[in-house]
Formats: sequence, structure tokens, C-alpha cells
Amino acid sequence: MSEAGVANLSIEDSQSSVASTATADAKKAAKEAAKAAKEAAKAERAQQRGVKAAVMTQPDPEDPLREQYGDYPMVQSREQSSRVWTKVESLGKDLSEQKVLVRARVHTTRGKGKSAFLVLRQRTATVQAVLFADDVTVSKGMVKYATQIPKESIVDLEGVVKVPEKPIEGCSQKDVELQVTGIRTVSRAATLPFELVDASRSEEEVKAAAERGEILPTVGQDLRLDNRFLDLRTPANQAIFRVQSAVCQIFKNTLLAEGFQEIHTPKLIAGASEGGAAVFRLDYMGVPACLAQSPQLYKQMAICADFDRVFEVGPVFRAEFSYTHRHLCEFMGLDLEMAIHEHYFEVLDVIEKLFAAIFDGLSTEYAKELAVIAQQYPFDVPTFKPLRLTFPEGIALLQQGGYPEVDPLGDLNTELERALGKIVKEKYGTDFFILHRYPSAVRPFYTMPCADDPTYSNSYDVFIRGEEIISGAQRVHDAELLTERATACGIPLDTIQSYIDSFKLGAPPHGGAGVGLERVVMLYCGLNNIRKTSMFPRDPKRLTP
Amino acid sequence: MSEAGVANLSIEDSQSSVASTATADAKKAAKEAAKAAKEAAKAERAQQRGVKAAVMTQPDPEDPLREQYGDYPMVQSREQSSRVWTKVESLGKDLSEQKVLVRARVHTTRGKGKSAFLVLRQRTATVQAVLFADDVTVSKGMVKYATQIPKESIVDLEGVVKVPEKPIEGCSQKDVELQVTGIRTVSRAATLPFELVDASRSEEEVKAAAERGEILPTVGQDLRLDNRFLDLRTPANQAIFRVQSAVCQIFKNTLLAEGFQEIHTPKLIAGASEGGAAVFRLDYMGVPACLAQSPQLYKQMAICADFDRVFEVGPVFRAEFSYTHRHLCEFMGLDLEMAIHEHYFEVLDVIEKLFAAIFDGLSTEYAKELAVIAQQYPFDVPTFKPLRLTFPEGIALLQQGGYPEVDPLGDLNTELERALGKIVKEKYGTDFFILHRYPSAVRPFYTMPCADDPTYSNSYDVFIRGEEIISGAQRVHDAELLTERATACGIPLDTIQSYIDSFKLGAPPHGGAGVGLERVVMLYCGLNNIRKTSMFPRDPKRLTP
Repeated sequence: MSEAGVANLSIEDSQSSVASTATADAKKAAKEAAKAAKEAAKAERAQQRGVKAAVMTQPDPEDPLREQYGDYPMVQSREQSSRVWTKVESLGKDLSEQKVLVRARVHTTRGKGKSAFLVLRQRTATVQAVLFADDVTVSKGMVKYATQIPKESIVDLEGVVKVPEKPIEGCSQKDVELQVTGIRTVSRAATLPFELVDASRSEEEVKAAAERGEILPTVGQDLRLDNRFLDLRTPANQAIFRVQSAVCQIFKNTLLAEGFQEIHTPKLIAGASEGGAAVFRLDYMGVPACLAQSPQLYKQMAICADFDRVFEVGPVFRAEFSYTHRHLCEFMGLDLEMAIHEHYFEVLDVIEKLFAAIFDGLSTEYAKELAVIAQQYPFDVPTFKPLRLTFPEGIALLQQGGYPEVDPLGDLNTELERALGKIVKEKYGTDFFILHRYPSAVRPFYTMPCADDPTYSNSYDVFIRGEEIISGAQRVHDAELLTERATACGIPLDTIQSYIDSFKLGAPPHGGAGVGLERVVMLYCGLNNIRKTSMFPRDPKRLTP
Repeated sequence: MSEAGVANLSIEDSQSSVASTATADAKKAAKEAAKAAKEAAKAERAQQRGVKAAVMTQPDPEDPLREQYGDYPMVQSREQSSRVWTKVESLGKDLSEQKVLVRARVHTTRGKGKSAFLVLRQRTATVQAVLFADDVTVSKGMVKYATQIPKESIVDLEGVVKVPEKPIEGCSQKDVELQVTGIRTVSRAATLPFELVDASRSEEEVKAAAERGEILPTVGQDLRLDNRFLDLRTPANQAIFRVQSAVCQIFKNTLLAEGFQEIHTPKLIAGASEGGAAVFRLDYMGVPACLAQSPQLYKQMAICADFDRVFEVGPVFRAEFSYTHRHLCEFMGLDLEMAIHEHYFEVLDVIEKLFAAIFDGLSTEYAKELAVIAQQYPFDVPTFKPLRLTFPEGIALLQQGGYPEVDPLGDLNTELERALGKIVKEKYGTDFFILHRYPSAVRPFYTMPCADDPTYSNSYDVFIRGEEIISGAQRVHDAELLTERATACGIPLDTIQSYIDSFKLGAPPHGGAGVGLERVVMLYCGLNNIRKTSMFPRDPKRLTP
């Protein structure tokens, strides 16, 4: 264990209600602490060398308190008891003096003479647990057993909830600690490739320490991703994926309330999806196939099939050699498509409702998770005001804002998008906005041209913090115009004939949008890399785990 | 249009409030009807030969009512009006004498002298619309225009809601009809590969007609699937996919309420997924990859990553040459995985809550959709009582029930599963039950053996109407035992080493299950083929549309 890990958790003995009752004098305590630390360091080094230290897993048979501790046999559905496990996050003053049973990970352990201090971790919650060998409720053997449990092991801990004199600063449950009466190991951890405390530390803390001349260990992205199931245990990661799940639920619930229904379209498709090189190809029972680059064609067919308003949450596949902070080869698409009566503004109305709900839902219902993320990756909650600018208006803002050379009929690159995001933030006070009426030349062939000027199209992108999270448009629902547009864009008609044909039997005017789930979470939380918001990211160099 | 189609909708003139005000004598009307039918048949034949009949798309410029009808220009987001469209399903007596605007498909048209009868269809709802040329609100040109609109075209229809003397038997909206004052076509349909009325007919109706000596057209499965976007417009299909969406929502909401969170795991994975031949292989940026056969390994990693209780709704891929009624090469997996404290019964508790919610939710909130499905595919709503039988108990029931030869340590084939389903239904009165403690030999290597007898395992299947919809188990969370089990099952360890390793850093005991979404809907609704519950099914012979 790194010293920094201990520092990070900063458990002060003086804060402990148990330790404070101890009578050992300060000098002796300091000596014993130094000895224990030396022993722990030695055991750690031995473990790192792959040498199995003689670790205590079962109690001394002579110990009168032997029933109170030791490794469980493997949990194998032997029996169901009436025992109740309390969640760490629910441990508070209201449970004071009550006996509880907790199953959690051992986050840190520290032995000190006759006492042991453990921090137990369960998802984003941590609590201090204290053993003091008094030979009545806790034996010396029990203390030894507890201090030898490897970090990240899972234990069942019985104890009494105590309110310490001072708050426990290093733990999420500051108002209480557990006075242990029983400890049993459910699953032992082997040597860790990195420390959770190191993986949970903010860059700010590392910098601040460096200024004091102290070098704190950090964990690189590849090492994290190679051991993702361990990396994901950090409080920030636990919170990020709760937020990700929340975004999905708000997306679905908002659209269901707006009359949408969930659909599932195939990811294995014939031909070349929407064309282009960025497609994964495979053999399907002897027939050439590819993985869908989006549910575009199928969600449009669902509209032609009268489903009226549909959404899909599913993986999309892009065989792109992109190594940027915001591209993945597989990501979650939140797609929606809807019949419109007159105007693509009907789609924009839905998109604004959707993001109002996401921004509001996260900042109110998930404030705790956002705070946990911000502890490691500080960010300001983004602001939301509905704002629609036309593409020409956006170009004018850029021209006035220091980019006079910007092409009024070209696409915006990442730099220009970010610049526009900044200008909009300053001028309108929102981190969210919609840019619509893009030039036709920079949109796909199935985009409906504007009626008044076909140089422009009934299309839109949506931005958070100056980065695109949504692309969408009114689609061409007229087979003749679609053929014309495809031809003009150089798309071989034979590859999309069945798609074109699906608009020939009465096609509702419609529009839609595709949202990148990982991007929404990344940009909402101001994170710097999309790999942080994908549970098991896929990029050109990473296919495992 | 088939005559059967008209018969099916059985719109009786005498039921029409508009027609009943007409003064034309019966003889003349009959003559004109015959003439109109002849003309319609002629136009149809011409259309079928690919000859474009001279169809009226714009009003006669001399018609004083020319503003009331004609094709719209293409809807292209020109402007947004304040017009409000009324849904067909909401047309009822409460709107009597009110003027409404409806956008819907032309389901059928029939001209008769100075009058025209249209049935408009919007998803599962239909309503009759009537035009009678009185030269005040409706001109002869308007009637002609209306009768020439091809079936499946989308129209905007203005009209006044009228309550007919007798209910309109052929429509879902029986209590009202629309007296048309304006009709405009939004999107014209070309020649249909089959008639919606033919595709919507029940086998029972075809049989009954055959007994009368009448042959009604039917539409085969391949023709339907080749034109799936048209086939999906039938009321039964509209209802099936609303039910499918509902099952998804109930699945998610029930599990969210039980403390689960939604995750998304990669479908592109290295190696061979869970092994075996039934895997789609592809090249991933020069590295061999495959499509995940299930999220099994990843959802278990999510548990090792402390997510505690997770679910995933995502596609699963099986490269199996199965042509049965219940296998697909791509289907939607509803997966769940959860840490357990002691026993896999904790998972079964969740599964029973889940299906109680699904059965209850469908039969109460989706009774209308179930009735629509039953119109074409008659079925009894299945019964739900929680019931758990051990595998040996199931074997005993089969042995007593006419299958004395059944292997007590073998797997159950489809015939035996169905037989057991029948026996259970008779004895316990439930279409749903859980069979647990399967022989270890018939379960995957990662299944936890029973503590008291490793011949059996902590595993389970769940059945509806005697067909399996769920497979699941407590998993082996101990790396040593997992290695032992894999070796015993002949799995090459090097292919699963990283999976095994993920249990070495403290692994919570856990279990889970995988549900096939299409199977749940198929079996709940007593449908005979899983292709009916997959929007765009994939089987060894079908990759399109």
C-alpha cells in the first residue's frame, strides 16, 4: 500500500471513539505503529515478489472468540438465513449503538498494537471499522486476522454503530464508525496491479503534493483499462456509470411520455450499411454482411411501418481509425425518429424537452453522484437554456468572434465548434444549443433540402460545451427526390434500392436524431476522454477486456 | 383490392349517417356501385400491369371547391401552422359535430355514385369517412379525387364528426364517422405487393370462408418479411411491437426499483466469446474478433467491478443453423446479474417479481393490444403463479406423466419441456414456472455446483407454456474452482484466462439470468413463430431487409 493511500484517507486515531478509550501512552503507540507499518510494508513486498506470506485465514482453535472470525467456506447456496445486511451508505447516526451486518470490500487495513483500523468500501460509500483487543468481544487473534486481510477482499463484518467524537474525515460516512464484533472473509483478493486509492486520486491532489515535494502514484489509462473491472471500482467510476444509466432512463422515460415506443433493429445487415469505408464486414452464413453504423435505415423503415414515434438504445459500430478523445469503434446510440406534420422544429421541440429533462434530472436526482465525480474530476454542472441558431447565424458569430475566414458553406471542425460553444456561452449563457439549417453539401444524401434554398438543409446538430452530441435532420421521404439526391451524392443506387423502395408505399414525413450516450455523459461531466464513459471501451487499439 | 377485403371491413351503407340522407333510389345506387367496382377493378389491373392510370392528383381549376382537395406539395418544413391533428383512436361521440383534422392512411376506398366511402387507418385504429357530392361542401371532383387515392397513401382529412344510426361494424371507431369537408394527399402509395386486409386476416376467418366455399387470399411468411415495413402495418403487428416495448419497460422499471442499474457491454470481443462454433467472426482492425453470444462474461465483470446489480438490454448473436420456430441468429437479450449474499434463491425472488410485473402489467395496461393480437392470432392470456420445482421433481412428474424413460441426469428436449409444461399446468394451474437444480453435466462450466451434491448445480430455467424463456445460475466466483470446472469441461484455459483472472481480486458471490425478449412476447401471446415478434428477423436464410 502506498503511503499516499493512507494520507488520502487520513484516518486520525484521535477521531476514533474506540481508540480514544485506549489507555496506552502516546510513545508506545507511536513505536507500535511504526512496527506495524514496517511489517505491513514487508508483507506487501513479499506479496509483490509473488511470495505467499503465511497469512492467517482461520482462527486459532484455542481462541475463545474463534467463532467471531475466519474465512467463510465458499458461498454456494447452502442455506438461506434470516440475516439482514445493511448498506454502508445507510450507516448514520440514527443507527447509533445498533448491531449491524455489512458486506463490503476492505479498502484499507492498518494494525496498531492491540487495535486494527479498517476502511470498508461499498461502491461510493466508505466507513471506518475498528477492532480493539479487549479479550471480551475482540481477541488478539481477531485483530491479527483483520489486519492480514488483503485489500479489495470482500468481508462480512458484524459490529456496533458508534458515533465518534470527531467526524471521520477520510470516509464518506463521517458521523459513524463500526466497533467490530465479528469479521469473516467472503472472497480474498490476490495482489493488485494498482491501488484503488491511487486510481481514485484527482490530478489536483497530485499537483498539490508535488508542490510540497511529495510524489503521489498515479495510474495510467492503459493500466486502468487493462484491469477495467478493478478500475471501475473507484468512486468516480461508480458514479459515472450510475449517471450513464440515469441518462438512459431519462431518455427513455421522456420519450415514452411523448408517445414514443422502443424498438430493436438488427445490427447484422446486408450490403454496406450507410456506405463508406468505416464499416466492419463479416461473413453471415456464406453471405457478405456488415455491422450497422447506425439504426438509420431501420428506424426510418419503422416510421414507414406506422410506428409513428420510435426510439432505440443500441450499439453502433464504426470501423474508424480515430484516436481522438471523442471517438470509439463501438458506442451506444440513443436514436429517435418521428413522423412530423409540417416542420423539423417538431423534432427540435422533442430534443429540447429531452435535454431539459436530462439536465434537470441529473442536477437534482444525481447531485450526489456528480459530486463524487467532481471529487476526482472537478467540473461545473453545465447550464441549459433552449437556444436555436441557424447555421448562417453561427457562421456570423464565428466571423465576428475572431474567425473571419470561416467557410459559410463548409462543415465546422472541432476547433470551430468549440470556439462557437464559447461564444454562445458568453453571449447567451448556455452550455447547450442547437445549430440548424446546415449546408446540404455537408450532410448525408437522405437529408431533406430546405424548401426555400436547397443549398441548405432541414438538418441540425446539438452541442454541449461546444462539442457535438447529436446529429439529425428531416429525412427525404419521397422516393423520387431520394433517388435524385443519392445520384447527386454519387451513391450507387443498387446498394440502397430496398431502402428507397420503402418510401414508395405511402411514407410519413419524418425526422430524427442520433445521440451518443458516452458523449453526453463525457460532456455533461466535463470529462476529457470518452474512454472514461464507456464501460469497456473499443478503439482501434483496444478490443479487450 | 380483394373482395374479401371489403367483406372484412363490412361497411354497410345503411349504417352511414351521411348515406342515409341520400335520396337516390336503391336500384340506381346498386347499378352505380357495380359500375364503380368494375372501374376500380380495371384501374387495379392496369396498375398491376405497371400501366399508370390517369389518376387525378389535383382538382379541376374550374371547381368552386378546388381549395378543399388535391395533393399537397411535399412536406418540407416550409412553415409551422397552429393546426392540430386529432388521433383516430381518440375519435368518439364526445367529439360529435366537431370539425377535426386527421392524418392517416387510406385503408380502403369505395366510390358509389355521388358518394365515396373511405376507411382511414392509423396504427390499430380505423374510422369511416364519407363524402357525398352536394356541391355545397363536397363537389363531384372531390369525390372522384377521393376514390382514386391509392390504398396505403397518407392523407390529411378535414371533416365533421358524426354519430351514425348504427355502429360501424368494420372499424375500430364504431360510434362515429367523419363527414369529409376536405381531403389532401400527403404521400401517395404505389402498387402494393399484398393487401393489408389480407395480411390482417386470421386463419379462423380463412377456414370459415373456405367452409362456405369462398377462398380468401392469405399472405405467406416470406412475402411478409420481404416487405416487412408494409407487413408491420397490420393491427396485430402494431400491437405485438407495443407489447414488446412494454415488456422492455416493465423489465427495466422492475429491476431499477430493485436497485439494479443499466449497463452496456461490448458486442465486439476478442477470442471466441463463450466458445463453440456458433459465433460470428470478423476482422477488427487486423485482429481476429467475434460478436458476443451474450453479455455473460462482461456482466460478471461488472459484478466484480462492484456494480452489485446490473441489467443489460442488447442484441446477442448466434451463428446457428437453426431453422426452428424459436431460434434467431440475432435477438434481444434481457440480461441481469446480481451479487447474492447466500443463495441463488435471491435471484429467483427477483425473477418471480419481474414476471409477476410483466404478466400483471400486460394483462392490465395492455389489454387493448392483447385483444388486437388475439383478433388475428387467438390466444388465452397465460396464468402466473410463482412455482419452483427442482429438476428431480420435474423428472418425477414426467415419469409419472407418461415419460417413464426420461434420463434423470440429461437435458430436456423441446418435447419433454412442453410435456412438463402441460403436466404443471394441469397440476398447479400456472403457465409459468421455474425448474432449478439442473444436472451439472448439462450446464456451462461457469455454473456453481450444488454444495451437497456436485452432480447437480445451482442453476435454473424458467418456462412459459412449456417453453424455456430464461436460463440462469449462480456462477462460480472462485478462480480456483472455475479453473477446475473449465478443465473438466475441456475448455482451453488460455482462451478464458482474463475472465478467470477477474475473479482473483475479491469476487462477490453472484448469479443471474438471460431472458430472450422475442420468446417472452411469442410465448405470452401464444404465437407460433419467433419471426412474428422480431421486427426485422435474422435467421440462417434471412439477412434482409
